[in-house]
Amino acid sequence: MGKLHFPLSAVAAAAAVLCSVASAQTFQRLGTCPTLGCILPPDQQDFLAGQYFDIRLEVHAPVNGSEATDGRPDENFTFTVGKVGDSAQPATEFFGVDEPELETWDFSWYEDLFAYDDDRASVVNVASKAYRRVALYEPGEYEGVLSYNGTSTTAYWRVRDLSETRKAKNVLLFIGDGMTTNMITAARLIAHKQINGRYQSTMAMDKFPVLGHQMTHSIDSFITDSANSATALYTGHKSTVNALGVYRDSSEDTFDDPKVETIAELFYRITGGHVGIVSTAYIADATPAALTSHTSDRGEYGAVVDSFVHGIVNYTWTEWSGPDVLFGGGAEQFCPPSQGGETYMDLNYYDVFRDAGYSVVSNNTELQAASDSDRLLGIFTTSTMTTWLDRNVYTDNLEGSENSPDCQGNDATDQPGLKNMTLKAIDILQTRSSADDDAGWFIMSEAASVDKQMHILDYDRALGELLELDDTIKASINHLRELGELENTLIVVTADHGHGFDVFGNVDTKYLNAHDDPRKKRNAVGPYERSGLSQYINTGDLRYGDSNFPSNWSPRYTLAEGFGANPDHRENYRVHKNGPRLPAVNISGFPEEEFFVNPEDAKSGFIVNGTLPVSYDQGVHSLTDVPVFAMGPGQEIFGGVYSSIDVFYHIATALGLSRTSPPETETNNWGKKYGSKFGYHHYTEQNPRYGPPAQ
Amino acid sequence: MGKLHFPLSAVAAAAAVLCSVASAQTFQRLGTCPTLGCILPPDQQDFLAGQYFDIRLEVHAPVNGSEATDGRPDENFTFTVGKVGDSAQPATEFFGVDEPELETWDFSWYEDLFAYDDDRASVVNVASKAYRRVALYEPGEYEGVLSYNGTSTTAYWRVRDLSETRKAKNVLLFIGDGMTTNMITAARLIAHKQINGRYQSTMAMDKFPVLGHQMTHSIDSFITDSANSATALYTGHKSTVNALGVYRDSSEDTFDDPKVETIAELFYRITGGHVGIVSTAYIADATPAALTSHTSDRGEYGAVVDSFVHGIVNYTWTEWSGPDVLFGGGAEQFCPPSQGGETYMDLNYYDVFRDAGYSVVSNNTELQAASDSDRLLGIFTTSTMTTWLDRNVYTDNLEGSENSPDCQGNDATDQPGLKNMTLKAIDILQTRSSADDDAGWFIMSEAASVDKQMHILDYDRALGELLELDDTIKASINHLRELGELENTLIVVTADHGHGFDVFGNVDTKYLNAHDDPRKKRNAVGPYERSGLSQYINTGDLRYGDSNFPSNWSPRYTLAEGFGANPDHRENYRVHKNGPRLPAVNISGFPEEEFFVNPEDAKSGFIVNGTLPVSYDQGVHSLTDVPVFAMGPGQEIFGGVYSSIDVFYHIATALGLSRTSPPETETNNWGKKYGSKFGYHHYTEQNPRYGPPAQ
Repeated sequence: MGKLHFPLSAVAAAAAVLCSVASAQTFQRLGTCPTLGCILPPDQQDFLAGQYFDIRLEVHAPVNGSEATDGRPDENFTFTVGKVGDSAQPATEFFGVDEPELETWDFSWYEDLFAYDDDRASVVNVASKAYRRVALYEPGEYEGVLSYNGTSTTAYWRVRDLSETRKAKNVLLFIGDGMTTNMITAARLIAHKQINGRYQSTMAMDKFPVLGHQMTHSIDSFITDSANSATALYTGHKSTVNALGVYRDSSEDTFDDPKVETIAELFYRITGGHVGIVSTAYIADATPAALTSHTSDRGEYGAVVDSFVHGIVNYTWTEWSGPDVLFGGGAEQFCPPSQGGETYMDLNYYDVFRDAGYSVVSNNTELQAASDSDRLLGIFTTSTMTTWLDRNVYTDNLEGSENSPDCQGNDATDQPGLKNMTLKAIDILQTRSSADDDAGWFIMSEAASVDKQMHILDYDRALGELLELDDTIKASINHLRELGELENTLIVVTADHGHGFDVFGNVDTKYLNAHDDPRKKRNAVGPYERSGLSQYINTGDLRYGDSNFPSNWSPRYTLAEGFGANPDHRENYRVHKNGPRLPAVNISGFPEEEFFVNPEDAKSGFIVNGTLPVSYDQGVHSLTDVPVFAMGPGQEIFGGVYSSIDVFYHIATALGLSRTSPPETETNNWGKKYGSKFGYHHYTEQNPRYGPPAQ
Repeated sequence: MGKLHFPLSAVAAAAAVLCSVASAQTFQRLGTCPTLGCILPPDQQDFLAGQYFDIRLEVHAPVNGSEATDGRPDENFTFTVGKVGDSAQPATEFFGVDEPELETWDFSWYEDLFAYDDDRASVVNVASKAYRRVALYEPGEYEGVLSYNGTSTTAYWRVRDLSETRKAKNVLLFIGDGMTTNMITAARLIAHKQINGRYQSTMAMDKFPVLGHQMTHSIDSFITDSANSATALYTGHKSTVNALGVYRDSSEDTFDDPKVETIAELFYRITGGHVGIVSTAYIADATPAALTSHTSDRGEYGAVVDSFVHGIVNYTWTEWSGPDVLFGGGAEQFCPPSQGGETYMDLNYYDVFRDAGYSVVSNNTELQAASDSDRLLGIFTTSTMTTWLDRNVYTDNLEGSENSPDCQGNDATDQPGLKNMTLKAIDILQTRSSADDDAGWFIMSEAASVDKQMHILDYDRALGELLELDDTIKASINHLRELGELENTLIVVTADHGHGFDVFGNVDTKYLNAHDDPRKKRNAVGPYERSGLSQYINTGDLRYGDSNFPSNWSPRYTLAEGFGANPDHRENYRVHKNGPRLPAVNISGFPEEEFFVNPEDAKSGFIVNGTLPVSYDQGVHSLTDVPVFAMGPGQEIFGGVYSSIDVFYHIATALGLSRTSPPETETNNWGKKYGSKFGYHHYTEQNPRYGPPAQ
């Protein structure tokens, strides 16, 4: 039996829509496939003209369960494609590709939580084919028809009609991972002073001329993760939780899912533009990964790192030669296993990048000293980089972090912040682009730990990360202005999803501490007029030049903050001075997957029981639309409310990446540059050893 | 001793900034007055050129507490005004008004919660004067200096330099009370169908071309209420919780606080335009009230209703002759006491309105039949109107509501919805404006129970109200298009504050119900990929023509929803079919002001302990910036992030209400129309009997 996974569309079978819907939601057979014939990309998908993608066809034959058939999928299925209104052709003719080989597999899933508890799996046999690296050039509506077992599934696809005229030379895309409007409001409150209701300064984001909202939901679930949402932002295609740059299919192989070309790949292939990738996460994390990776499992960290430098080599795919800069944490996927890392093919990826022409730096001093002319890899910590609060206020926490990028258990005490990394990225990209006929650049800069700290309910650290992002935006705008590139650069700031966070008043921590009764402690909370003004500003000694951060992180009156959902935990609404919070823990004697209030966390507080499954030791993502701030050439189309995929189409429009006819040399220039260099052509078959997906 | 109230600025005295800040937050002496000399409007306030306002000066002499003085306020204080850079003049000369009489009073407050628990009040003696109905015409910066006790307080005021050219003939302002981006996202999810990540329809709000965010904080606390926030939206002046159209002073009199002219008053006085007021709340509630009321206590409901028809008559003030339409609930302020109402001066306000030329209707049938040519009062329920969900789905709940507008305890079974009221308001305003030289109109239409239902954690009813608002917006746009007025009308949709609401997954209610262990019940929650698709759409029988509402409010898989803050309550994530929820109650034997889980609510659920003071039986407002959607003439300035007061300035700009010189007839045409008709000139002294402020 194949991999066990958990999908089923809301509409299980055409003939039994209503009853199936009612019983398939927590798990889905394959979210994008309500019938038994599956086309990926599925119905209702948009494409950039000329964007490369793969097609996966699957015919499902459930063996048991509510959809049971004879268990034999039709292996003689056919697939035709055509513009709506034109005659359809077999896909091989339409795309000019060879007929792919038939693949078969099986997988199993659970119809609901009762089946899961009882381990009553439903098994599905599958017949499948995949067409690799095709494209649609002519704008308009297309129709793909999968015929099987005397029935058929139709997918309508739309190629958007976008200008090919480039408006922006450069794009600087900032992503505040997990950042919502609510969090921006809270960060403003603790870092910018008010007098009589007037802010004396505001966030850099607040000054952007154009504001939009994007809807973050997945293709098959209304809550997304960062892999899936990054895929939407970078490719114009929504996908499934944990998927990077692919539509998730039902096969066990996490590297054979149908791919879609990303904004980085398109920008490089079509314009020869330069790409930079910056994140405060371990660099194999989803948001940076989705620029070059194509896998249904974001947990394939080693392969992700390989894709940064080599692109995709297991199938015919687009050109890619590596970013000009790659800055972040995550040495654990660079140090060879002999030094404690876990790398793709057990290689030393510092060496792999050096062999590919990269200089390598491992701390801020080296970063600042590095040449602006050379490609640069900067890996500054073993895993996720240390938060702004610990690097700048509670600096003792840097000691004993054992987080150095040599994976030797030393402390990474000289880490750059997001601002250091982003400004250096701009310098290098600008220098190298200028030396390359002013080809222009695309930089993605991610404040990853807004999300990571919100997950662990560490409000202070999360808001510190958000303020560091805002400070980076401000500094980047000033720096681009100095370089004379501001007017050539489209700057977009957005998020990939939210957390259900908000501020609802203040807390008199002195009063809270003075009482033992949990109900008395709650009376320390001051809503409405009792919230008063922010005491984080101008009430302490910390100063940061022209950057706006709180001057006092532990005033008597703190913010009362909370989430729509949380694990069991305790709240005392005080900054966690000894390092990031651990709200919930497993307790000896209980099942490993069950979590309770951490007895060591927020000891002076009162207990808040959780609203999440007890297997969650941290918070989860939420539904809310997230903001998009835009300034620069092409900004005007970023206003209003739209889908996350539109961020991709808007950026592609600004860069003029739409191509309504194939490049003349197309068949000779892809997939060859690095394909044989390291002797591997299929990730999974050789190396299917990466762990389960992370969130 | 005077009234006991609870303010003190973040900066208690100029000489002791840091130490005072640390100890004064929950309560404030007077939030807008950090020193002992108070100018209202205080420092940093903006004005529309020609906007009428009052000035209140106070000199404080604390008798005891951390700021103790000799307790004798300087009664010989002086006040000068001038443009910055010009020579200052005494206020009497500058504004051409008589020197007002000196007033004195005292008040007391608590320095913190410890003082409150111990009843250790701080007493302040006050000397004060008030200048009534002045205006600043010339754009620029002004400086007001209050000199007292050998020291002084300075207020810098700014008159904005705005065009006097009118762009919009009409303004339609929709307010979703308490509505956030998070709630819009959730409402979209339950009312609009998705296929493979593409919405098949979207909200009317989603289609607006311009999006902004407004910061909702108060002048003296970071969390606002609806009175204060409506004041900011309508006057361009932020104020204090519970205040309507005034800056709150420290006197006991809730009708002597310094006023600011509202958008409705300005529009009528300057252009002769027609005003309409529509709300699903009792009509004396804060959001409608703030258009014509001026009091520091929103709880003065009777006086609020009087102000709708008569405007302000206790002091010299602006012209006002009543709105063309006033539609909503709240008969309790119209029925005379003999019929169970509680009205201003014990009058029958149906009669008062009839005497002022209004027709009166009391149900939807009468509303639809009413002439479009006459001024119309429509009061449809005793108090707040019934929710969309109860009027359209769980209609049994209309029976026994005893909510009829005759205050006789009958059921109001023929209530109009927000759409009915708003479309009728448009028809009447359009007819009357057309007959009056096309003077144009301003309509405020409020979906009040988004807020009211969110307060009681009734997610379903709150989202129903939000969807009704959206449906009203859609229908209004279509109707204006039919009338040929769409291109003449600026439509603005916004909120006054938020609640910390979000959706974090789905809930398998069947699984939740099947378990008794609260921790097992929590495992019914499905985050991320387990959230699946919305089952509220196309899974039931309810249909609403071209309006988008859920077709099934009780699917097996519901939304997992929550707040950042809540009272003790229980969650089962199911619609409350028997009427609005009551999450927390007082329990016999405990103090009256202490609330616990309601044993009768959500019985199948699990308990979630509260994070609010135990005196709260419902949720509270939150900090988040709220969205602003704009379309029509003047829309272009509504993009980006700004203060709530900018909504006023943007609307005033679209209507061209700025006036840089006084009207020639000014001294002869204000405050006279209704001032003596009922023989009262000072609300409070005659009638200080209204209860404490509501929230």
